[in-house]
Amino acid sequence: MNLREIGEFGFIDRIAGRIVSGTGVVIGIGDDAAAVEPVPGRLDLATSDMLVEGVHFDLSFCDPVSLGRKALSVNLSDIAAMGGEPRHFLLSLAVPPSIPLEFLDACVQGMLQRAGEFDVALIGGDTCSSPDRLVISITLLGDQLPHRIIRRSGARPGDRVCVTGTIGDSALGLRLLRKGERSGPALDRHLDPMPRVKEGRALAEAGIPSAMIDISDGLLADLGHILDLSSVGARLYADKLPLSTRFRAHFPVTDRESLSLAVAGGEDYELLFTAPPGKMQELFGLFEGLGTPVTEIGVITQEPGLSLLGADGAELRLDVAGFDHFAASDGTKPCATGHGRPACGVHR
Amino acid sequence: MNLREIGEFGFIDRIAGRIVSGTGVVIGIGDDAAAVEPVPGRLDLATSDMLVEGVHFDLSFCDPVSLGRKALSVNLSDIAAMGGEPRHFLLSLAVPPSIPLEFLDACVQGMLQRAGEFDVALIGGDTCSSPDRLVISITLLGDQLPHRIIRRSGARPGDRVCVTGTIGDSALGLRLLRKGERSGPALDRHLDPMPRVKEGRALAEAGIPSAMIDISDGLLADLGHILDLSSVGARLYADKLPLSTRFRAHFPVTDRESLSLAVAGGEDYELLFTAPPGKMQELFGLFEGLGTPVTEIGVITQEPGLSLLGADGAELRLDVAGFDHFAASDGTKPCATGHGRPACGVHR
Repeated sequence: MNLREIGEFGFIDRIAGRIVSGTGVVIGIGDDAAAVEPVPGRLDLATSDMLVEGVHFDLSFCDPVSLGRKALSVNLSDIAAMGGEPRHFLLSLAVPPSIPLEFLDACVQGMLQRAGEFDVALIGGDTCSSPDRLVISITLLGDQLPHRIIRRSGARPGDRVCVTGTIGDSALGLRLLRKGERSGPALDRHLDPMPRVKEGRALAEAGIPSAMIDISDGLLADLGHILDLSSVGARLYADKLPLSTRFRAHFPVTDRESLSLAVAGGEDYELLFTAPPGKMQELFGLFEGLGTPVTEIGVITQEPGLSLLGADGAELRLDVAGFDHFAASDGTKPCATGHGRPACGVHR
Repeated sequence: MNLREIGEFGFIDRIAGRIVSGTGVVIGIGDDAAAVEPVPGRLDLATSDMLVEGVHFDLSFCDPVSLGRKALSVNLSDIAAMGGEPRHFLLSLAVPPSIPLEFLDACVQGMLQRAGEFDVALIGGDTCSSPDRLVISITLLGDQLPHRIIRRSGARPGDRVCVTGTIGDSALGLRLLRKGERSGPALDRHLDPMPRVKEGRALAEAGIPSAMIDISDGLLADLGHILDLSSVGARLYADKLPLSTRFRAHFPVTDRESLSLAVAGGEDYELLFTAPPGKMQELFGLFEGLGTPVTEIGVITQEPGLSLLGADGAELRLDVAGFDHFAASDGTKPCATGHGRPACGVHR
């Protein structure tokens, strides 16, 4: 069965039929627009990510459930990076005739499953046909108290640079996918990342971070955004970078190759933030309570620039840069995204 | 110059540099998510429309400024149909390498021009690359007082069916485009429609409509949505349908062909609504003040079904139906949309 057979409204009904009514949704799917009533006195947050077949994902080796989950997760990660509470999302799909309905069903199922995990409601969107490629565009709305929202621009000299979880696993997973592997925990980090919503909210509520971003383009590139907007620099310590046991098993020696993958591979969807030194004790206590690893990896400096120092204190020069979606590529990164993040696939 | 040369962030900066700060925007472009503070006690509204090259528009004969305007207008029309106030929007673009930057600049310029006309602010979005086709996805947020929002489901037997402006002009414009015409007022209604935001808001504030929708799929199809959701039927009078002087000049005789075009052509972006008979006098007074034509074209019935009656009172049978994006087409409508509307082009 495909979309031609059930028609657009049939497909919308299928989606609508799966939605449990969300908190604060006054009007959901089925009208010209959706109406939501946020908690009074809170700020609305909105973020969008668009995923294009052949750019952000490859249907030949991403399962639709994971694709649906990831499409929402990358948006959830953006709200998490503001310290916000995700609430509602709109889904737009351009669907080529070749896509079976079963694939779409599974994709939406994955998306709604992730939505349920974070108590987020699908409130509307759009479906249309596409000549050849599947396009998924999500807008996620959220909110937070105005004084709790964490921007990219608040880093100050002396602040510590911290990151949740581990980095490099997604890039390793992508590399293994390209080599033909089709399952395993390393791949999961790439194909099905889990956004740090709980951690972002807890950080915001505790008022700890001075600046925060989620890692999509790569640790160095995303830290670069914080530095640019905060008009500061940073020193990072290579031996403090949190690398998983899996990553270290794959790369027994932390050489330039593995280090480059860790700091520039991207799509970690971990939270990267800065915090005043006086709040570090509170930070570690908070994360112990959350059960999530957090690591201090560097310090913010007054002088601009970003340097990565080896164990001997000498600066490491890596031939890496943050991804830029439209910049000329070196062949290994035919595509990557800034605000839009790759979802699942070899294409970067 | 193209996007590869200036890079993603260069392009985002170009867009950001053009944005005048919008009312209520706390955080706009340049952070992980946008933050907006709606007027306290009002309901947030959100709507999305995605436009795909080759489906909703054809670059060979739509100018980029009009395309940008129309991409936003179809979303504005959705908020208008709720009686809402449009506030902020997010723009996601998937851009193929073949698209010159000048085209994108002009498209965004048209979009921001229309945004300025309606005091709407661009607050965020996404840009990514696309292998071959341009995709434009917009999410528009708005608000309204809860009791003023007009849904599709409120039509009651005896209510009058009304429509703003004239219908059929957009479909006529599309037909002329297909025949090779490239300019003229008929084409403008198709390529560059003006959403009825002011009228929708005025209707909502006056509390006149019992149900409302904007005409994108065609008058019959969109009235069908109101009837379905209100569990009522309707009788329409063919000789009351508001046809423009231009439309009548092109079709001196209102025959089945021209009538079909008027009631099923779609993309009129007029407001179609129902109102109790006791409010018709107030309605006409309101629209006289607005300077917008409004026409009573039929009546809501308790018995289900939708009939179109000729001047002699006999039912007219037209071989038309509302568009369905994924339904098998008859060749003349290879694509059309429900929630997503064609933007500018021969492809329907």
